[in-house]
Amino acid sequence: MLTEKFHDVLNHEGVVSVVTWTPAEPHITNTWNSYLTVTDDERILIPAAGFTHAEDDLAQNNQVLFTVGAREVEGRDGYQGTGFRLTGTVRFVDEGQEFNDVKAKYPFIRKVLEITPTSAKQLL
Amino acid sequence: MLTEKFHDVLNHEGVVSVVTWTPAEPHITNTWNSYLTVTDDERILIPAAGFTHAEDDLAQNNQVLFTVGAREVEGRDGYQGTGFRLTGTVRFVDEGQEFNDVKAKYPFIRKVLEITPTSAKQLL
Repeated sequence: MLTEKFHDVLNHEGVVSVVTWTPAEPHITNTWNSYLTVTDDERILIPAAGFTHAEDDLAQNNQVLFTVGAREVEGRDGYQGTGFRLTGTVRFVDEGQEFNDVKAKYPFIRKVLEITPTSAKQLL
Repeated sequence: MLTEKFHDVLNHEGVVSVVTWTPAEPHITNTWNSYLTVTDDERILIPAAGFTHAEDDLAQNNQVLFTVGAREVEGRDGYQGTGFRLTGTVRFVDEGQEFNDVKAKYPFIRKVLEITPTSAKQLL
């Protein structure tokens, strides 16, 4: 589901957005492209220092919207820049090897936010 | 409300996120930092080619979440990178001088998405 172009985007720095929500309201939290780890089975691991609203939302709804992009990567029809919007589910992880690996790189984290994509759309 | 650092961020390229929502679900739409115009009275004008979900949401709810960032701009405590999250209200504009000015730069647009911020928080 996650194409070579998706991985290309992650090789360039930029702002990632993660949206979680309850019926009352959505919350958006951001991180950097370079902070992401994509596992072999296409889960996305994000070091989570804050993300407290996302964690509260998760108690009611584990759906997530995720966007990432890079102006440096060519989109369709020669357009300079591309981006992706993913839907998926999210959970917070605070133990285990993957958590330890992310924490070794980002000691400031509280948990790892793990996104399991259910769809991925190239936007440009 | 929009600080010099906010304007600094817009001088670097990156991905902007705009979140609109109804009780059923949120939608996220993206554009590039360089596509934004900030008016003297601190409204943000965004060329809108797609944004159809946002327009549908607006019929029920004109609130918006907006994030923008740049790794190149120094955040707090010497951190390399900063970003902002804004709340505000949104409307679509398809006539008048501001619409014409944006359309002159981006002929592909359908409308201009105008955000009037009600809060702006520097995140890093």
